[in-house]
Amino acid sequence: MNPQPNILYLSGGVGGARLLEGMARALPPGSLSAIVNVGDDFEHWGLWICPDLDTVLYTLADLGDRSRGWGLRGESFRALQSVQRFGGEDWFQLGDKDLGTHLMRTLWLREGQTLTQVTARLARALGIECRVLPVSDQRSPTFIETASDGELAFQDWLVRRRAAPQVRRVLFRGDALPSAEALAAIDAADLVVIGPSNPYVSIDPMLSLPGLRERLARKPVLAVSPIVGGQAVKGPLAEMIPLLSRMPPSAGAVAAHYGSLLAGLVVESGDEPSVRDLPVLGTRTVMRTRRDRLELARAVLAFAEGL
Amino acid sequence: MNPQPNILYLSGGVGGARLLEGMARALPPGSLSAIVNVGDDFEHWGLWICPDLDTVLYTLADLGDRSRGWGLRGESFRALQSVQRFGGEDWFQLGDKDLGTHLMRTLWLREGQTLTQVTARLARALGIECRVLPVSDQRSPTFIETASDGELAFQDWLVRRRAAPQVRRVLFRGDALPSAEALAAIDAADLVVIGPSNPYVSIDPMLSLPGLRERLARKPVLAVSPIVGGQAVKGPLAEMIPLLSRMPPSAGAVAAHYGSLLAGLVVESGDEPSVRDLPVLGTRTVMRTRRDRLELARAVLAFAEGL
Repeated sequence: MNPQPNILYLSGGVGGARLLEGMARALPPGSLSAIVNVGDDFEHWGLWICPDLDTVLYTLADLGDRSRGWGLRGESFRALQSVQRFGGEDWFQLGDKDLGTHLMRTLWLREGQTLTQVTARLARALGIECRVLPVSDQRSPTFIETASDGELAFQDWLVRRRAAPQVRRVLFRGDALPSAEALAAIDAADLVVIGPSNPYVSIDPMLSLPGLRERLARKPVLAVSPIVGGQAVKGPLAEMIPLLSRMPPSAGAVAAHYGSLLAGLVVESGDEPSVRDLPVLGTRTVMRTRRDRLELARAVLAFAEGL
Repeated sequence: MNPQPNILYLSGGVGGARLLEGMARALPPGSLSAIVNVGDDFEHWGLWICPDLDTVLYTLADLGDRSRGWGLRGESFRALQSVQRFGGEDWFQLGDKDLGTHLMRTLWLREGQTLTQVTARLARALGIECRVLPVSDQRSPTFIETASDGELAFQDWLVRRRAAPQVRRVLFRGDALPSAEALAAIDAADLVVIGPSNPYVSIDPMLSLPGLRERLARKPVLAVSPIVGGQAVKGPLAEMIPLLSRMPPSAGAVAAHYGSLLAGLVVESGDEPSVRDLPVLGTRTVMRTRRDRLELARAVLAFAEGL
């Protein structure tokens, strides 16, 4: 790689955002870009909510709540209480501080700015140096086909029903295109790192956009396994793997899912045997502290150097 | 009047809302309706804000902040802080609890409900018995023609510039119609009371709507003077009267402004001499306590009985 390589990082929400924050500290300014999933995005209370983008922004700005894993630290929920009083939807919790983000994003989008421009504006105000790019400026919502409740909008399945209805398929049906900025970031990348996000509902929505997977395939791509010792660190992934891949949940199932796209996989120490026919790095991947994030980022970058 | 008369009340914001709340306690349930100014309404942060309707609802539900005169008691402003961080507009303060109202109203309006329906829904959730009717379901913003800054949107003039630019004219230029519900409430009224609101910017925007003044003229109409001893209890009225009516600010100027519409005027004790050729009741009109509101309401109703 060049002395100042261009690193591109693909991220979903919590886990992906944590490693991204470590990467941002591990790398020199200007060398890191992130492309973020927008398949979770949805309208709520008339506002356009981008859960993964917000988690990424809040984590990079070190404003995120560390125990809940979503939203802002020191958040209050007074608007929500008021909405409840009026009989409004209360299954998705928007905090008061958080509302400022959603209000401004929704306003700027209505004024005609692209989601890419809006995200850059939010990131700048939060003092974030890493380029944060929504994978698309168009709406491309993910749907979950369930065994019990038919087709559900993603947040309806994940949050409202707590991911209880069994998944049959994950559906990407929109005609959205990747943004020009996201495609250019891929073309400019020396290395692509897929964060420890859910492959089915955080990474696949991006890979399913026209031309994106093909462009990535020209680059060295590493991934970090979101499965640790057969469990997901967070979220419904461990239950989804047997349903969608007919494999037990393991780092190997993640490798199999990404297939020929990967040049290597980073897994939790001890999980190496589940991965076949692919360079694998075993290390500590569970990030409890900010130090953990930085160390994992450095390990990933060193692994890439060695390939 | 009938044993259970229909009383119709015309209201702007703070002063109008206070007496309305007294009227609601003075009268039997079901006999009071209020028509409320919507000329102040405007879009802010992408939300549709109705300052007078909200002040009326919050005052009737006894949720209003008593010292500020606007917004909710015990309010916080965390969303506003967040908006400020993102460089958004911060000259109009929307509180966190208050945001729940604006979010639901904006959402329901976008879903196709009328402002009348939305207001009824908010009032019901707040346990309000008095019928609260926006004068129109259509947007009919008030503009202020100023000597120094040209034409300004009403909130821009009142809040952002603190009513400093001198008023030349108040402009009602929309083609909005009164709502069918407001017109029916006028037709059903045995008595109309115009609250102690600013005649130029709270009551005139309603009177200027097609057909409204003509229908009111068929009814006995009383007003309560918002001018007390040559001063406005709140707001820029005392400065506006000489500019717009070429009279010194007085209860008499208020009487002259409404002209033949009035069958009587209620004024602060001692202000009677400024009013000519009209039945006048002098009493305590400044409402500092909830008890003051009830007593003024009873005095107004007794005055109407005697006419």
